[in-house]
Amino acid sequence: MQITPKVKEILSWYEGENPGVKGNLVRLLMHGRLAGSGKLVILPVDQGYEHGPARSFAANPPAYDPHYLYQLAIDAGLSGYAAPLGLLEQGADTYAGQLPTILKMNSANSLSATAPDQAVTATVKDALRLGCVGVGFTIYPGSDACYAMMEELRDIIYEAKSDGLAAVVWSYPRGGKVTKETALDISAYAAHMAALMGANIIKVKPPTDALDLEAAKKVYEAEDIDRSTMAARIRHVMQCAFAGKRLVVFSGGEAKDTEGLLNEIRQIRDGGGSGSIIGRNSFRRPKADALALLDEVIKIYLNEA
Amino acid sequence: MQITPKVKEILSWYEGENPGVKGNLVRLLMHGRLAGSGKLVILPVDQGYEHGPARSFAANPPAYDPHYLYQLAIDAGLSGYAAPLGLLEQGADTYAGQLPTILKMNSANSLSATAPDQAVTATVKDALRLGCVGVGFTIYPGSDACYAMMEELRDIIYEAKSDGLAAVVWSYPRGGKVTKETALDISAYAAHMAALMGANIIKVKPPTDALDLEAAKKVYEAEDIDRSTMAARIRHVMQCAFAGKRLVVFSGGEAKDTEGLLNEIRQIRDGGGSGSIIGRNSFRRPKADALALLDEVIKIYLNEA
Amino acid sequence: MQITPKVKEILSWYEGENPGVKGNLVRLLMHGRLAGSGKLVILPVDQGYEHGPARSFAANPPAYDPHYLYQLAIDAGLSGYAAPLGLLEQGADTYAGQLPTILKMNSANSLSATAPDQAVTATVKDALRLGCVGVGFTIYPGSDACYAMMEELRDIIYEAKSDGLAAVVWSYPRGGKVTKETALDISAYAAHMAALMGANIIKVKPPTDALDLEAAKKVYEAEDIDRSTMAARIRHVMQCAFAGKRLVVFSGGEAKDTEGLLNEIRQIRDGGGSGSIIGRNSFRRPKADALALLDEVIKIYLNEA
Amino acid sequence: MQITPKVKEILSWYEGENPGVKGNLVRLLMHGRLAGSGKLVILPVDQGYEHGPARSFAANPPAYDPHYLYQLAIDAGLSGYAAPLGLLEQGADTYAGQLPTILKMNSANSLSATAPDQAVTATVKDALRLGCVGVGFTIYPGSDACYAMMEELRDIIYEAKSDGLAAVVWSYPRGGKVTKETALDISAYAAHMAALMGANIIKVKPPTDALDLEAAKKVYEAEDIDRSTMAARIRHVMQCAFAGKRLVVFSGGEAKDTEGLLNEIRQIRDGGGSGSIIGRNSFRRPKADALALLDEVIKIYLNEA
Amino acid sequence: MQITPKVKEILSWYEGENPGVKGNLVRLLMHGRLAGSGKLVILPVDQGYEHGPARSFAANPPAYDPHYLYQLAIDAGLSGYAAPLGLLEQGADTYAGQLPTILKMNSANSLSATAPDQAVTATVKDALRLGCVGVGFTIYPGSDACYAMMEELRDIIYEAKSDGLAAVVWSYPRGGKVTKETALDISAYAAHMAALMGANIIKVKPPTDALDLEAAKKVYEAEDIDRSTMAARIRHVMQCAFAGKRLVVFSGGEAKDTEGLLNEIRQIRDGGGSGSIIGRNSFRRPKADALALLDEVIKIYLNEA
Repeated sequence: MQITPKVKEILSWYEGENPGVKGNLVRLLMHGRLAGSGKLVILPVDQGYEHGPARSFAANPPAYDPHYLYQLAIDAGLSGYAAPLGLLEQGADTYAGQLPTILKMNSANSLSATAPDQAVTATVKDALRLGCVGVGFTIYPGSDACYAMMEELRDIIYEAKSDGLAAVVWSYPRGGKVTKETALDISAYAAHMAALMGANIIKVKPPTDALDLEAAKKVYEAEDIDRSTMAARIRHVMQCAFAGKRLVVFSGGEAKDTEGLLNEIRQIRDGGGSGSIIGRNSFRRPKADALALLDEVIKIYLNEA
Repeated sequence: MQITPKVKEILSWYEGENPGVKGNLVRLLMHGRLAGSGKLVILPVDQGYEHGPARSFAANPPAYDPHYLYQLAIDAGLSGYAAPLGLLEQGADTYAGQLPTILKMNSANSLSATAPDQAVTATVKDALRLGCVGVGFTIYPGSDACYAMMEELRDIIYEAKSDGLAAVVWSYPRGGKVTKETALDISAYAAHMAALMGANIIKVKPPTDALDLEAAKKVYEAEDIDRSTMAARIRHVMQCAFAGKRLVVFSGGEAKDTEGLLNEIRQIRDGGGSGSIIGRNSFRRPKADALALLDEVIKIYLNEA
Repeated sequence: MQITPKVKEILSWYEGENPGVKGNLVRLLMHGRLAGSGKLVILPVDQGYEHGPARSFAANPPAYDPHYLYQLAIDAGLSGYAAPLGLLEQGADTYAGQLPTILKMNSANSLSATAPDQAVTATVKDALRLGCVGVGFTIYPGSDACYAMMEELRDIIYEAKSDGLAAVVWSYPRGGKVTKETALDISAYAAHMAALMGANIIKVKPPTDALDLEAAKKVYEAEDIDRSTMAARIRHVMQCAFAGKRLVVFSGGEAKDTEGLLNEIRQIRDGGGSGSIIGRNSFRRPKADALALLDEVIKIYLNEA
Repeated sequence: MQITPKVKEILSWYEGENPGVKGNLVRLLMHGRLAGSGKLVILPVDQGYEHGPARSFAANPPAYDPHYLYQLAIDAGLSGYAAPLGLLEQGADTYAGQLPTILKMNSANSLSATAPDQAVTATVKDALRLGCVGVGFTIYPGSDACYAMMEELRDIIYEAKSDGLAAVVWSYPRGGKVTKETALDISAYAAHMAALMGANIIKVKPPTDALDLEAAKKVYEAEDIDRSTMAARIRHVMQCAFAGKRLVVFSGGEAKDTEGLLNEIRQIRDGGGSGSIIGRNSFRRPKADALALLDEVIKIYLNEA
Repeated sequence: MQITPKVKEILSWYEGENPGVKGNLVRLLMHGRLAGSGKLVILPVDQGYEHGPARSFAANPPAYDPHYLYQLAIDAGLSGYAAPLGLLEQGADTYAGQLPTILKMNSANSLSATAPDQAVTATVKDALRLGCVGVGFTIYPGSDACYAMMEELRDIIYEAKSDGLAAVVWSYPRGGKVTKETALDISAYAAHMAALMGANIIKVKPPTDALDLEAAKKVYEAEDIDRSTMAARIRHVMQCAFAGKRLVVFSGGEAKDTEGLLNEIRQIRDGGGSGSIIGRNSFRRPKADALALLDEVIKIYLNEA
């Protein structure tokens, strides 16, 4: 399949990157049912790390098997699959070349009581040998660990891009002065910081209409920034990502009912978001239900629903 | 355009540097409308990092687009443009060779509640591949993190200068025993410390007539150091930067009214300051207004206003 | 001075390079009297190495002093100056920022009786600390040493470009099966190999209408490749440099009479050559004569003569 | 001038050092008016870092210019000059080879409120390229940071001596259990620890007759250690520096009146101290006064006053 | 002793060097009886390596002892002493700080039958730990090994200068197309190549009035380069060393009678040579004779004979 004008336009936003990085962005943007549309739906599975296995997989036991997750992403026609080292390794050989993968480089766990932080649990070299299109990394702006996390990210981005891999950044403000993690000013700020760090693809949470920081609140009100609908808020976040010149995908957030999820996704689309990254809401359902849901999601991004 | 006697004189102050560093200082000093005058007006854009995107760009939405910032600096005939990695990358190819750029190597954010600190978010190698004339780095003397920040700066200065890049230091006392960040003794001390670290260009805030440290207050009074006007205070800061043998540029500070800003700049000029670094006061205005303002600023430094 | 459409077009040919390399190409293309024209006239001084000092400088003794060579290139309004380490060091501080320089990384000498080869006599780090826009390197395709030389070149190009420096390659077939070093098929082949190695700027000798290799001769005749005039031959060499998408400059060759030289340069211009690299024919003349000659050369490239 | 028996004797104490370190000790011991005497008077200028520029230089404004400090040390015939990176760089080329210099590797500032600590602001490589005879480093035994500082010192001493540079240690107990920084037991302990770390030259403060640590007090009294005069106390400190087999120089301390200072120096001499390191008391006076004072100091050490 | 205007002028020729290198040149130029004159007489002892010990020392057996050689250079008031690793090590501690030393980094031997080459037998780190002012290196331009030797030299020069050490190059054309090693064109070429490599001090042989290379012969005759006297030839060699802006010292060559040697040295002086490097002619004589001879040599350079 030939690269589309939409994908060409997206590549033009990444003028600072080498052809290796651009080629991997193309691999992602030209894969699955959304190929060529400029939209992405990615399956992320790091909940086992974050919340433990039973909370993640007991509702749909076949998902305990890493092959299930690869197969789900393939069967649903998703754009790619992001997971920590062990999950990717258990399947990377079987599914070699069948699905763009993103090696999630760091992970937190629910047992730790430190300031929000994560362990870097893989190397860029792992991503290369596993045939990934990119690496994923979480930062927690606001956390007492945030400057150290950003410096880890800098090293990983530098090495990954030098080796032609795309950089995906989960930007999740947490700790410090943050009291409402999904407030609009916080989500927009999160997206902007990830862009400044050099992220190719940014993942943030869909913002609520709340505002958190006092200094920001004044500006949002003075400038009358529209936050009345999710679509308007998404539009603002995209603007904060270099005037929409970065791919920004939104998480599904907490498991919720299907209609609520699809409505949210319609608004992400209407606000110009680049797509969704849907974990719990897909792999915790029986496979048939998950495929049905993802089919709906994809249709929304294809403007067929 | 040929190098001027003024620029030659400035180079003579940098006897410790190799020809690569000197050549990059020339590139900065011989660019834009102030070329050859020995004065500098630089556009810095790290407010998106420091304060979030809406506080930085909502007042003038075209500025969300990184290309706008490059173009503003070019259209205004500024000496150079300083920004974090992501902002420079989105434009470095399009504007290659058209504008001296400074890679801002570290950045803070408004979400963090730690002692004043910043994350190092780029490498010297990035500055080389992006064709920058230098690297920029912020230190917060006084902060509990200040010794660590200074050690990061030392490593970056050493590597950058070895590779022929100029070193620009933002010296912003904060935390510790500092209670008045813009007091005259504090600004002068900030400039001096940056010079001792090996900074080629120093950025400090225009000082007020306040004094902060008790021990300093006694000396300022005993020696009757003139602090009655901004020009006198600037003169003192320049003296503290190796008897005026370092380039010191002053920030515009908080967004303020035009006349207040221009008066301040006239005094910076009268006090022998090397120029201004004007961020918020330029990119937050509509472009026409920003260009008009910067035209005034440049005329002041050219002694035409 | 603003970058011209012609220079922008030239940059578009170098899509594989980072902004650092492009910025240094701009510095070269926007310097001197040819700034913006897309043409280059460069002063190279490695004859002292190649032929010894008296053969190089005795005819015009002031040229024994390295400062003379910098000043000649500046006074003549040339695009740049290329020389070995010692020559550049003796002047790099005095002339810092006043003239684009190219560090010639390897040099041969007339005393050696080995297969054509050169010693690598500088490092890429030297080029950075001396503030050069690029590095220069000679290969002798055909020589028994040619594969080793090409491997040296590969290492230097990789390091130089990573650090934002442009790569200039002197491609001089010599030894092996080469019997006529300036035959058209040989010069064209030389330019093509340099382009294949990643050269940003290629230096070859102006080709004669001879053909050297039997297998090539057949094709040149079968395809009726025009080699009747120098302009036609230059056109062919440019075509062999990626359809004219590489900067190719031509040496002046042996010292010759002025009119002969200027006629040749008119043909280089008419054939679409990117410019000239003129050593012996300039620095061996008294300065006034040299400036008069270079003035003529520049006028030709500006289409004023 | 030929090396003297006294200097030869001093070298014999440094049997563990390589010829490079010994050669640099000779350069220091054979320079200036005290050359060959075995005594040292060194100009240290880190007060600008420690106390800010106005407190350091406002009393004698020419001293704001780094060249003034080099020239003062030369004109006074001192043994050497110690300063942080920026100060040395601004003059190292002009005064190359004219004065032994010591690169002060770490510095504190008056703005910080942490446990006593300093930032390492230079590298051993800087000392080599600047042509220094040695490196200087401050430790604060007692501070919560003291073990980390000692480990930094270990690394620097190891690298510096491997490269033939002498190690000068400022040993200033501060923080922790220290309540009287200049008590005799504290100063003696400070000198001893520096010797144990491998210092070639040790700088401590002239001790008072106070005792600080309880456990020490008992011994000083039981053993009846003479602390009745400054000379006696200096003798004790020297004894604690490997039975006098280390060069120990004493600071002048707070700016004080001339006669008080000279009396103290006479006692340092009488107690067998190796010399003085005189900063504030020299560069804060008008140059003529400073030269007159230093002339007196040198005469004392030459036993001429 | 204060640095003289002559030495300041010499330093100005070395604008490309850091203060460490300049400082070491000062140490050499300000040592011994020629201190401050801008002239150098250096004792080199690598004949033991080159010709074997008996040919070197049997004529004056005390010279078998390395301490003898140090003491000879000191007693004669020479500028410095150059020798291979072992010789310097045996004495470096005893004579630490008493004499500028140059570590000769490579050496040939008379047993080898390969193309002229040398083994690199020491490291730059050795020079630092031994307290040397510089490193010495021989190249044999013309030899089949010459390109490899030049590349070794490049690495050593780069490291040595970075560490503040001066670079001394013995440039001895040999092999290849060279038939008369001391022909004027060959010596001049040798000096020029060493300068191009970055040598701070160049050692060549005093040239005869012969010419060797055909192409050079034509130029020497056409340009009527004066080679009628040794002084004229020396003047030409100096001109070929960057218009006299490099220190060039001349070897004494084969052991010869005293008057012949002194006459030659008078001509070296008259031709503007920087001095002599006298090995065999000094250490193979009884010490009293050697001192008498060196006294004469020094008087010549002091214009006292």
